[in-house]
Amino acid sequence: MPIYKNWFLEKKIPGKREKGIKHYFLIEKIIFKGKSKFQDVLIFKNPIYGRILVLDGILQLTEYDEFIYHEMISHSVLFPHKDPQRILIIGGGDGGALREVLKHSVEKVHLVEMDKTMINLAKTHLRFVSQNSFSDERVKVFIERGEKFLKNTNEKYDIIIIDSLNFGEKNSLALFSLKFYKRAFKILTKEGILITLGASFLDFENFVKKIFLRLKKVFPKVFILRFCVPSFHCGEYCFLIGSKKIDLKKAKIEKKFEKFKKKFSLKYFSPEIFKASLTLPPFFSL
Amino acid sequence: MPIYKNWFLEKKIPGKREKGIKHYFLIEKIIFKGKSKFQDVLIFKNPIYGRILVLDGILQLTEYDEFIYHEMISHSVLFPHKDPQRILIIGGGDGGALREVLKHSVEKVHLVEMDKTMINLAKTHLRFVSQNSFSDERVKVFIERGEKFLKNTNEKYDIIIIDSLNFGEKNSLALFSLKFYKRAFKILTKEGILITLGASFLDFENFVKKIFLRLKKVFPKVFILRFCVPSFHCGEYCFLIGSKKIDLKKAKIEKKFEKFKKKFSLKYFSPEIFKASLTLPPFFSL
Repeated sequence: MPIYKNWFLEKKIPGKREKGIKHYFLIEKIIFKGKSKFQDVLIFKNPIYGRILVLDGILQLTEYDEFIYHEMISHSVLFPHKDPQRILIIGGGDGGALREVLKHSVEKVHLVEMDKTMINLAKTHLRFVSQNSFSDERVKVFIERGEKFLKNTNEKYDIIIIDSLNFGEKNSLALFSLKFYKRAFKILTKEGILITLGASFLDFENFVKKIFLRLKKVFPKVFILRFCVPSFHCGEYCFLIGSKKIDLKKAKIEKKFEKFKKKFSLKYFSPEIFKASLTLPPFFSL
Repeated sequence: MPIYKNWFLEKKIPGKREKGIKHYFLIEKIIFKGKSKFQDVLIFKNPIYGRILVLDGILQLTEYDEFIYHEMISHSVLFPHKDPQRILIIGGGDGGALREVLKHSVEKVHLVEMDKTMINLAKTHLRFVSQNSFSDERVKVFIERGEKFLKNTNEKYDIIIIDSLNFGEKNSLALFSLKFYKRAFKILTKEGILITLGASFLDFENFVKKIFLRLKKVFPKVFILRFCVPSFHCGEYCFLIGSKKIDLKKAKIEKKFEKFKKKFSLKYFSPEIFKASLTLPPFFSL
């Protein structure tokens, strides 16, 4: 993990980007530093972003803006679905997506995380993310690789949320493959929806297009969801969504949202933001 | 200008931000480095962003993503206005906003830039921004401070675009004052619209709210326009818009845009992106 004096230097995707910019984050205090079975883990405190989680040198989330990412990855698929009851989360060991999913009245959530250390950290040093999610009785955790779980499961799910490491990392490579998307499609129910990571689509246009076209080979409807996370290397970020039947752009989620709002207040997601986030600029033509 | 070996370190707003993060950009080649009457100027080439313009230590634009900023600052006010003929640009010496404004069939554009050096650079090292804008016969350049120009002019304008340095910089302070907005209101025609810089409204929430409320004291309708510029320090950015009469959220710009599209293709702006950009997340309540 590259730390210089008390500054953490974020690892960049190899190539131009790695050579052209450097982002340093001040380490006020190291909360946890160690090596799990799968990855280097660093949690530290920064004066702007609060606690920051870093895996294999790449910033994953910060206390300050994780709500944007986690609200978007969960509510963007749970609201448009008529009755999401059985939810599968691949990765997401920090518990952030789980926390948001549990705000809906779902029957069960299966969370498949390969790294047990992540779950332990979520329950201790990252409690601001997971809150009490892991003790909710609707939740079952599987310590297993996502691709292996998908291969062997007999379960069916209404929603699959893939909250893994970025593309290009060896531990998440299989989760972006055509084979994986085909399997996911199979275990999704009739109106099932899958959401997965993208990247900045200005900086990684080719990658986002590639994943879009790959999902398009499997799902009748594919969408890109844009938003901005200030602590990410260039702010801009996106998720990709594959849907078996529901057209997210036409989904009327307002009523469901009004009911939801009586119990939970969200900070980033709203029906208006959801629609706005599905809008792409002309330069990104598909 | 803080340059370490061949890396440029961007200056941050004093305070937490300055202490918590550092962004370095590789200098492949220095194109221009000097001191004008008003500010330190640096133009260099970077492997990701191409040519980068820096004023007083702060990144202003890059070859790679300036189109987002310049399309948004101009078309977002020119399209909703029924017949924008007389345009005033305060600042914008790089010629980017000018370039976009001139795509509309306007009668005249007055550009008021305090720093003559900027205009010279725009015509030489920043030609990718200004293109041939400064030789368009509809354009008249005034080398003068914006606040002084506004005090003395007898002209009337349909649109005022304030494309200055960020808030907090001594050279742009007056352009964010209540007095300045009142004067701008006076010289705007009946359906006049003004657009000015904001900031990341996650990172500078208080500043954006302050300017919003200040504009609200003068203009009946005020809007915030969000977008993301990857080279900016945290991506997220916004403009603030004061409108005398036109409700931008209700403006029907599709027809006008279709006509425009036959002559010019835009990379970021579209009627859909325009509407999406006017949508604010719940946490930013006003």
